[in-house]
Order: sequence, then C-alpha cells, then structure tokens
Amino acid sequence: MAPAGEKKNILKRLDAGEVVIGDGGFVFALEKRGYVKAGPWTPEAAAEHPEAVRQLHREFLRAGSNVMQTFTFYASDDKLENRGQTLSFTGRQINEAACDLAREVANEGDALVAGGVSQTPAYLSGKTEEEVKAIFIKQIDVFVQKNVDFLIAEVWGVTPCHCITAHISVSKCADIVGINCHFDPETCVKTVKLMKEGVEKAGLKAHYMSQPLAFHTPDCGCQGFIDLPEFPFGLEPRILTRMDMHKYAREAYNAGIRYIGGCCGFEPYHIRALAEELEAERGCLPAGSEKHGSWGSGLSLHTKPWVRARARRDYWEKLKPASGRPFCPSMSTPDSWGVTKGHADLMQQKEATSKEQLEALFDKASQGH
Amino acid sequence: MAPAGEKKNILKRLDAGEVVIGDGGFVFALEKRGYVKAGPWTPEAAAEHPEAVRQLHREFLRAGSNVMQTFTFYASDDKLENRGQTLSFTGRQINEAACDLAREVANEGDALVAGGVSQTPAYLSGKTEEEVKAIFIKQIDVFVQKNVDFLIAEVWGVTPCHCITAHISVSKCADIVGINCHFDPETCVKTVKLMKEGVEKAGLKAHYMSQPLAFHTPDCGCQGFIDLPEFPFGLEPRILTRMDMHKYAREAYNAGIRYIGGCCGFEPYHIRALAEELEAERGCLPAGSEKHGSWGSGLSLHTKPWVRARARRDYWEKLKPASGRPFCPSMSTPDSWGVTKGHADLMQQKEATSKEQLEALFDKASQGH
Amino acid sequence: MAPAGEKKNILKRLDAGEVVIGDGGFVFALEKRGYVKAGPWTPEAAAEHPEAVRQLHREFLRAGSNVMQTFTFYASDDKLENRGQTLSFTGRQINEAACDLAREVANEGDALVAGGVSQTPAYLSGKTEEEVKAIFIKQIDVFVQKNVDFLIAEVWGVTPCHCITAHISVSKCADIVGINCHFDPETCVKTVKLMKEGVEKAGLKAHYMSQPLAFHTPDCGCQGFIDLPEFPFGLEPRILTRMDMHKYAREAYNAGIRYIGGCCGFEPYHIRALAEELEAERGCLPAGSEKHGSWGSGLSLHTKPWVRARARRDYWEKLKPASGRPFCPSMSTPDSWGVTKGHADLMQQKEATSKEQLEALFDKASQGH
Amino acid sequence: MAPAGEKKNILKRLDAGEVVIGDGGFVFALEKRGYVKAGPWTPEAAAEHPEAVRQLHREFLRAGSNVMQTFTFYASDDKLENRGQTLSFTGRQINEAACDLAREVANEGDALVAGGVSQTPAYLSGKTEEEVKAIFIKQIDVFVQKNVDFLIAEVWGVTPCHCITAHISVSKCADIVGINCHFDPETCVKTVKLMKEGVEKAGLKAHYMSQPLAFHTPDCGCQGFIDLPEFPFGLEPRILTRMDMHKYAREAYNAGIRYIGGCCGFEPYHIRALAEELEAERGCLPAGSEKHGSWGSGLSLHTKPWVRARARRDYWEKLKPASGRPFCPSMSTPDSWGVTKGHADLMQQKEATSKEQLEALFDKASQGH
Repeated sequence: MAPAGEKKNILKRLDAGEVVIGDGGFVFALEKRGYVKAGPWTPEAAAEHPEAVRQLHREFLRAGSNVMQTFTFYASDDKLENRGQTLSFTGRQINEAACDLAREVANEGDALVAGGVSQTPAYLSGKTEEEVKAIFIKQIDVFVQKNVDFLIAEVWGVTPCHCITAHISVSKCADIVGINCHFDPETCVKTVKLMKEGVEKAGLKAHYMSQPLAFHTPDCGCQGFIDLPEFPFGLEPRILTRMDMHKYAREAYNAGIRYIGGCCGFEPYHIRALAEELEAERGCLPAGSEKHGSWGSGLSLHTKPWVRARARRDYWEKLKPASGRPFCPSMSTPDSWGVTKGHADLMQQKEATSKEQLEALFDKASQGH
Repeated sequence: MAPAGEKKNILKRLDAGEVVIGDGGFVFALEKRGYVKAGPWTPEAAAEHPEAVRQLHREFLRAGSNVMQTFTFYASDDKLENRGQTLSFTGRQINEAACDLAREVANEGDALVAGGVSQTPAYLSGKTEEEVKAIFIKQIDVFVQKNVDFLIAEVWGVTPCHCITAHISVSKCADIVGINCHFDPETCVKTVKLMKEGVEKAGLKAHYMSQPLAFHTPDCGCQGFIDLPEFPFGLEPRILTRMDMHKYAREAYNAGIRYIGGCCGFEPYHIRALAEELEAERGCLPAGSEKHGSWGSGLSLHTKPWVRARARRDYWEKLKPASGRPFCPSMSTPDSWGVTKGHADLMQQKEATSKEQLEALFDKASQGH
Repeated sequence: MAPAGEKKNILKRLDAGEVVIGDGGFVFALEKRGYVKAGPWTPEAAAEHPEAVRQLHREFLRAGSNVMQTFTFYASDDKLENRGQTLSFTGRQINEAACDLAREVANEGDALVAGGVSQTPAYLSGKTEEEVKAIFIKQIDVFVQKNVDFLIAEVWGVTPCHCITAHISVSKCADIVGINCHFDPETCVKTVKLMKEGVEKAGLKAHYMSQPLAFHTPDCGCQGFIDLPEFPFGLEPRILTRMDMHKYAREAYNAGIRYIGGCCGFEPYHIRALAEELEAERGCLPAGSEKHGSWGSGLSLHTKPWVRARARRDYWEKLKPASGRPFCPSMSTPDSWGVTKGHADLMQQKEATSKEQLEALFDKASQGH
Repeated sequence: MAPAGEKKNILKRLDAGEVVIGDGGFVFALEKRGYVKAGPWTPEAAAEHPEAVRQLHREFLRAGSNVMQTFTFYASDDKLENRGQTLSFTGRQINEAACDLAREVANEGDALVAGGVSQTPAYLSGKTEEEVKAIFIKQIDVFVQKNVDFLIAEVWGVTPCHCITAHISVSKCADIVGINCHFDPETCVKTVKLMKEGVEKAGLKAHYMSQPLAFHTPDCGCQGFIDLPEFPFGLEPRILTRMDMHKYAREAYNAGIRYIGGCCGFEPYHIRALAEELEAERGCLPAGSEKHGSWGSGLSLHTKPWVRARARRDYWEKLKPASGRPFCPSMSTPDSWGVTKGHADLMQQKEATSKEQLEALFDKASQGH
C-alpha cells in the first residue's frame, strides 16, 4: 500500500484517505497452534516461542496488514500472576519481546507497530483508581521505550451495558474511534455508524476503526461472545468465511471506516479477503494474493468441471453454507448470571478456582439449564 | 510417546501395540496461512517459504504427531505444469525440500517421516499405464533417496464409486490399511470397520489407519466433500471442534484403529485433542498440552463465573454448538454431473480453463440449480 | 367458565377479573379444510357450507373459547367483487349467515358473539373517506341488526409502519385495546406491554387483548408475516406447538392481558392449550379437555415405555422440536418492495391480475433474489 | 373421478388403470379438533360426536379421496378397556357407527368404504394366537355385516424390525400391497419400490399403495416416528407443505403406486394436493379445488405485488421453508430402549401406569439424555 521509503504514521495515512488494514487475533490463532492457554490467555509465547509469534505476524503482513499489534494483551504482571503461571519470564520481558517481534516483521514490509493497552483484571476486581493506573503505566512504559508507532487502548464503557460495549481506540487524544472484539462484523459496523453520528452531531471529527470477531454472533447479548455457551471451544460453526469478510470490508468502507481490521477468530486468510475486497480503493493487492485467486478464481484450474463452475463471485456471494450439523441449532441463549463489576463472583483470585468452588458453579449452571 | 534413543519404525510401533498419532492437513492449513493456492493446491511452499512449512510441522509435533508427512501432495511435474505455475523450482526440488523439512522437525522429537505418494492427474486424464507408472517412479525416487521412514500411497478404488472411496495406505506390501481424506471421521471409522471385517474374513492381518477430514459431511455422496457446494471456501461451519475430535479418537480406538490422524481441515489443536483423549492408552501427553487444559479445565481461571462453570468434560460433551447462521441450512445437496474417469470434462489442461469454457460451465451449473 | 344463566357482557366479564379466551383463525383453518380460497380469502362458506363453519365454531367452543367471532372478515361487497367471485350470495347474505352460525354455537355454551369489522380494500386503493365510511356502515349494519354482543374493529395504524402495526380493538369507545394477527405471540405480548405502558402513562385505563398468529415469526419485519417468503403455503414449519401456547398464555396473563385469543394458524387444540394453562386462574377446564391430558399426561397410557416417559410437563417444556428439514434454514428474509398505501401496485383490480402483469411481477421478484 | 352410476370396486378401478386417492389420518386430525385423546387414541367419537367424524370424512371426500376408511382403528374391546375408558358405548357400537358414517359420506360422492383391521394390543402383550384371532374376528364381523367394500389390514412384519415395517394391505388375498403410516413419503415410496421389485422377481403381480405420514422424518430409525422425541405433541415443524405433497404424489405415481393416500398428519388440504398433482392422470379435479388455485395461482388476486409474484409453480417448488425456530435443531435422535415384543415393558395394563411406575420411567429417561 504505502510507497517504499519513509513510513507515514497512522494519522498521516488516514488523513491522506488511505485505507488501513489491521491484523487479526493472536490469542485465538496461537491457542489453536499450541502456544496460548485458553482461560488465562496470557502472551508468554512472545518470549517462550518467538518463532511461532513471528510467523503469525508474517502471515498477517503477507495478507495485507498495515499494522502489527504487539502480542501483549493481558500481559500485566497481576494478570500473569493470578493466572497461576510459573514462568521464567516477567511481564516486562514478555512485552519487550513482543514489541521486538512486531517491529522486526513490520520492517519486513511497510507496516506500523501498535501497542495494545488492555483492561486489567484489577479493574474488575474493584481495586482503587491509583492501583489500576499504576498497572497501566507499567504497560505503557514498555511501549514508550520500544518506540511503538501508536497505541490501541481498550477501555470498556463506563456503564456496564448499553448493548454496545464501546471500546474507544485512542491514539494521542483519541483521533481514531472504534470497536474492538466481542461482536461480529455486522454489529460492529452498525455500532461505529452510531458512534460516527454521535461524533458528527457534536461537531467533532475523528477517524473510525473496527476490529470485530470472525464469528457470527447474531444471538449474543450486550456482553458479547464470552457469554455464548460455545465460548471458547465450540465456536467453529460460527467462523466467518472469506465471503463474509468481503461483505464486512465493503460495509465498513461504506460506513466511512478506514481502519479495518479484526480480532478473535481472524486468521490470515480473513485479513487477505479484506485487502482483496478493497483492492481498487487501496490500489494494490497483498503479497499473499500471489497464492490466492479472489472470489474463487483459482478454481478454474480444478479437475472437476462442477468445481470449476464455482470460479466466480456470484456463486460464493449467494452460497448459504450448510453447517453439516443437523442435530445442532442455529442460535444459542447466552449465559449471564446478572453479575457486574464489583460483584464477589468477579473478584480475581491468585490461585485457580478450588474444586469446591467449581462444584458450586457447576451446580449453579445446571439449575439454569 | 516413544522412549528416547533409537526410533522404532512404524510397524514395530504398531506391532508393539502403540497408538500412533498422525498429523493434519497441510494444503488447507497453509492455504489459510497464505502459502498454497486453492485450485492447483501445489506444495511449492516447501521450497519457496520453508519457514512456514517448518512451523506447521513443529506445531503438529508439539500437538502429539508421531509422523511428519512430507508436504509433497500433487507435486508431480505434470501437475505443477498443467496448473499454470511458472515456478523457479522443479517438482524434484520441491519434493526434496519437503523431505528435508519433515526430517528436520521429526528429529526435534521422536517422529517418523512418511512420504506421500499421490494420485496423478495423468491417471484421470486417461494416460497409459506406462506413463502413469513413470510419474509415480519419479515421485518415489526422491523418497528413497531422502530415506523417508515409510510411504503412504493414496490409491483410488478401481471402480469409480462404491460410496466408499477406498484409499489403501501401503507401507511395503500394505501392512497398514485405511482411509484418507474425503469424508468425516464418522464415515471413515465406519468404513475402516468394514475393511477390517473384510480383511479378517479373508483370514488376513493388518494394522488400520484413518485420516479423515476435520469437516462434518453427513450430506456428502460417494465422491466426498469436493462435491459439496461449500468446497473449498465455505466449509467453515463444518469444522470439527476439539470435542468432536475426542469422540473421533475414542471411536477410532474402539474400532481397533491404531494409526489415528487427520487430513484436510485438521489444525494442530485437532491433533492435540486426539493425543489428549488417548493419554491413558499412550501413557503421555503431548508437549503442546502445557498450553491446554483437557476438556476446558483451563477455564477454571476465567474471570466470569459462568465461564468457569464450563471447566468440565460433560459441559462440552453435551454442547450442541450453534452455527450463528439462521439463514443457512444444516445440510447441502452435493454437485455431481455424472462424470467419471476418462470423460472429456476431466481431461487435464495445460492452461487454465478459458473464459469461454468457464462461461459454458457457469451456464451448466445454473441449469442444475 | 361462566355460570349458567344470563350471559355477562364482555366488559362485565373483564371488569370482574375474568380471563376471556378468544377463538382462533377461521380463514386459515377453513382454507386447509377446503372451504376458503387463499388469495381472496373471502368467507362465503358461511352461506355455502354452513356445516363446515358451524363445526369449526363448535370445536373452538369445546376448546374453551368464550367468544365466537363472526366469520365475516373481508366480506364487504367490493372485496367479494374484485376477487373475481361469481357467487350466488351477496355480502350481506354471507354476513347474516355468519352471524346466525356464531350465535347458534355461542348459545350451545356460554359464549359471546363478536362482530369483526375489517379494513376494506377501498382504503388501500385510495378511495375517499366518504366511500370508505359507507362500506364500513354497511358491514356494521348487519351486526347491529343481528344483535352481536360486541365488535372487534381492526384498524391499521395511521403511519404505515412503526414496526408495530397497532390494531386497536374497539368495544364501544375502545375499552379493550390490543393486537390482532400479523405477528407471533412473543411479539404481540411485547407490543401490548408497550401499549399498556403508554395508556397508563396517559393516566387512562383499559382492558388488554392479544390475538397473535400461531406461527413463529422472529424474522418478519414491520409489515408482518405476509412478507415472509413462506406466506401462505409454506408456513407449516413455523406452526406453534401446544407447549408454545402454554408459554404464550402464561406470558400474556403475566403482562396483564385478560382477553387472550388467536388469529391465523390457531387450531382448536391451540385454544385448548390456552384454556388448560389458565385452568387455575379461570377455575375450570374446557369441555374438550375430556379428550386431552394436559402436558402429555395421556401418554401414561402409551404402549412403549419411552413414550410413557414423556407424560410430564418438564419433558415438553424443555423439548426443542426438530424441523426434520436439514436442507432448510431457520429464518428467512422478508420480501418488501418498498411499496405503501396509495402506490399504484396496491390499487385493487376487479379482475385477476393479467398474465402480462404477472410476468412483470415474476421478473421483478427474480431480480430481487 | 369415477362416472356416476354403479360404483366400481377397488380392484376394478386399479385394474382399469385408475389412480385411487386415499384419505388422511383421523386420529391426529380429530385429536387437534378435540375428539380423540392422545395416548389411548381410541375412536369413540364415531358414536359420541358423529358430526365431527362426518365433517372430516366430507372434507376428505371434497379433497378428492376415493376411499373412506372407517374410523375404527384400535377399537377392539380389549384396547378400549385397557385404556381406562368408562364409556357408554361398546366397541361394537363404535365400529358400527363408524361404518355408517363412512358409508353415508361415501354415498355423497363416488367413494368406496374400507374397513381398517388393526393390530391389537393383545398381540404385543403376548397373548396366544387363538386369543388374538378371536379379537380380529370380532372386528371383521362388523365390517362384514356393514358390507364395507374392502378391508385394509395392518399387519406388522414378522421380524420386529427390518428398518422397514412392512404393512401389507390386503384386499381379498392381498391384491394390493403397500406401506401404511410410521414413515414419511420419501421412505414409504422407496420401500414400496423395493417391495415391487421383490414381488416382480417372484413372478407375481400386485397393485401398490402407500399411506405415509405427513411429517418429515429423515432422522427416524426403523421403528418409525413414535420413537422421535417430538412424538406426538411437538411434530408441528415437521408437517409437510402442499408442495411436499405434490412431490410425493409424483414420485409415488412414477414408482408405479396407484393407491396413493396418507396417514397420521394428513389434513384435507394434503389430500387435495395429491389430487391436484395428478389432475391429468385422473382426468379431473376434486370438488374442493373450487376453493383452491393449484400451485398458488389464487395469489394472483392478493393485494401486495410481492405476494402476487408468488402465484407460480417454480416459486413454491424452489422454496426452502424456514422453521422460524433458530434455537431448535433440524434433526433429532430417536428414543429406543431396546425393547421388543414380549418384553415386560410392553405388557398391556388395564389401568393407567401408576405414579411410581411413571417415576421409574422418568428416571430411566433422564439417564439416557
């Protein structure tokens, strides 16, 4: 996308009308590859298995990502600790390694490095503002030292639930506003539209971003996909296809969103589909498209004639893909025990939940079903 | 699984009653990662992007695979050629690189290297037996030179369709018999059971293997998943979960199958689930399980109590995962134009199908719908 | 429900806190029985086949209905005419016959007779207020002469669509307010709740009624089920079960609705389920319950033990009934060509749509798909 | 269908190449109308509420039925008794009344009367051949005296389950062979085809009939729809549409079946659809078609243009009707506790199952889920 030579910063790119393609979700992708533990979701792989993290960065770069997000989600020390990890790396070492990996791969292309500032467990556990701030500062300190190009701060809305959990992505004074994770593309684009209306009514200006899930979640409530009974090990049937991604890219673009990326569930081919949909607007195809024919065109080489007959856009646009699961429903009822911030049930624990505590939860769960 | 020191060959392992875990599908996984083109499906990445292929081998090794299959599927020269590739590598160079990568990673653990001998397009195009043999010999020559531990030969059944496309996997005189690709685990296990009955009725002995798809295909006909309208870009809703994999591992084991692996759609976490299900039988967990709690146990560390309540086997066993796609059906009708070996429509072409030829196919397809 | 002797009028019943059970939909039930033509939906059967109409009234009475609605929907002369009927009965004769039948059966029990005043095609065709009024007066004249106990006037909301098509049911000065037809019970109950809030905020008082469809329509837009692609010949998979009806009765009751009935799709057993759910509140079971065990209790007599094991409420409450249609989706996208009152496309025609006109519509339809 | 004047008997009709349209299921239809109790399913309504039974006969006659089956299913005295009925009518009185009603309505048109000889509970309870025979003779005695035109004997296959429960319909020496109830049309037609092949291979000749369910049951096992968890109160989403009936009629006809009728779930409009599909072959439309436009043609009169656009055959043929139930699956797993004839669990009881017995069954059921 960008000309070789000096890299433009994110705002210059957006101000110039460029479409910035984000990257996808590291925790979910690396969990499937064997480097992240579901539950704690901590990013120690950046230090422990750098080759795996580097490879994923590269795949997103090849797929068209203009931004490498550091794999630092949830890497505050308190999180690492209360997740029962006995690691040979500190949170700081992990975050530094993550920054280095992102920078290394970003420099293989023309990508920027974004530091991710995440909500800390301390917040939900009801710690004081001072304590929470201290943890944030520790996180940000590494980013400053490692000279990341910009920050993406995930901040949950103040009110517990507007059926829209407004994550505001901030780059120096919040020049870019958007939605990250928790909902599918359709919901995210709709929500950014509402944000945009609000911003414009207030006479303000901003750039807009969206980084949704790569899972269909028409049935999830205001707290997002975590409450769905399928989270996190039964989400496969909800995974978006590349056709769904083309649709998302187009709708996001039409809604005025110019930072278009993804979050949990996004694999490199999902990002590639975004870049391919916006080929005309961006004036280029990603490197990875050398191994991909947009909209199935590569199938014109297939042995079987009825598969060759699928080498066209309208075939894939009209397809309603079957689940292959006739014994399963198409929607679920989200769990939710009416629990919000400050509630004892959300207090963080240093140790894993005890057997007795778990039994009590299992009982509570079965009553609800 | 195996003790350090000298590696036992595949037959010794099976004769000793060991359960051998295979690996997963390279073409599908690498297509999503950006290194394989859907349609031609050729494996030039082994030479062009060895780091990507090496990483995937490593992930399978970590997940518990005892066998590294060389990424040489479809790498005969005639295939590369008539897929319109203009490559800087010959088929031989690609196959050699693939063997080296498989060996390199196998040696990082205690895995064996298997060479994959694939059906050539020449066969379907109706070439003579002589011609087809010559191509096979070229393939095998590399394996011999690179000293792979054994071969997996994919041979289609002679009759075009018994509703079971019996792939026989041969290791010197076919000591291991089984099913590869094209159908879901349920179908494959059922078919191997039939094979076993047949072999035993004939007074013979063999070891059994299965390497099914990681897609649910209750609706596919006798030619397998290629005919499903979702092949290959809309298969996401059919992807098996890790729970489905536990079930597959158990049923395969109960059916007497001792070489249990996967094919298209299998990601490292699918293989890990097989290894975890058979922990007791194999006497070990794979390295990758350090980042995984079997059956969701890692969720006992989650913030939300209703997610902690999912940290148990029976929750995931009973779950009927929703598709999140209420506008889609749960089964499809396979395409099939009644075309078999020798038919003009299956003749291989050197060039991509022409625009005119494609238009004719598109028309034919729309009439059928 | 009511003691023998003098019948109380509808308001006295509701004022006294009684729960009034309405009846079900005549046009749909009689279409399936062979006496009403889908499309025109005219009620000439009241005069032509009185035994069929009488029998359906009786079945609803047996099922617990406290009200017999006259089968006079759409029976204005202009409607009969422009539906291409060549009948030996006038609209007046049909309406008189319908009143007599409703009265005859009402007197077999303790039910009231309600005259239904329907929207006329003249309204949509854009006739003057005078003309429309004249047609209404003609309709009402019969009801007055035949001395029906009260009227149910179906009046469409003034604005074409609030996503709630507020039908206001009027009994002398609109003492009863509610929703009729077009949406499923869930939507109707929710809407009446909103109405109630509005009425109470305005410091007013009213009784509330609901007469929803017996079809699940989670996917229909603001114009109701007519726009669903399945209307009217493919609605079978959406039919509510008796368990769904129990749920509806309870939710309607909890919402403060005391006139609880049904519309299109309601068969006698649906009404019976309403009456059985509210047995305690109404202090009686309907006559028809002599042939029904609530919540499956009659199954305790079944031959097979696993069917006897279904003779309990929680079995049926938890059941998620399968469609038996794996090739069909669970939701549809409603048709709608953005056409509203006054548009040429909605002008009534005396003759059936011509072949040419139909062809044009078919073309328009296929473009939209 | 048949010319006025002397009625031809069933074999003359079939020998002459006529297509005979059967009627639909009385127990299910009358259960919904309020005259039959699910569980015992006994036909006392013939004596208690003759107007209801007469009306249903008339609707089937209007819909095109050439045969009125007497509503005598399960009316042996032992059945009535052990179903806990305290009736004012004997089995004989009920059967006589049923014969009279069938004859009365048959004579309103040109239909024949068929007596239904049903399997008795005595058989499953393990009574002696003598005892079972005595009950049959009692049933048949009434038919002889009332001079029915022919008998339809439902005889279960000797072996408990061939995955095909072959009911053989006998008319003097079994000239007509076919399938009744328990499976959907697709399964029934397929099975009759197999029967036909068998009969023809044996060098015999016969006429063929099919009377399937009007429910889709792709998921039911060899014992039929009773084992489906939805039986009998949650079958609504499986009800066939009239389009499904057109397809059934055509496939049955193409398979050489000439006695085409229905069983449980068939309503008059289902029978009408059979008669309309075979209009050309039968040379006539049923009386009820005056109130029906085949294939939706009546919709050309609808107010909304997009509904008028549905007035064509191919619209309805292609429609995949949505269930409106996104929380439900499309297939179920049948119950079955491995119980067959003679097993204590199937012994008939005079009294309803006791509370304690039921509790034991409920426990057994919940273990299985």
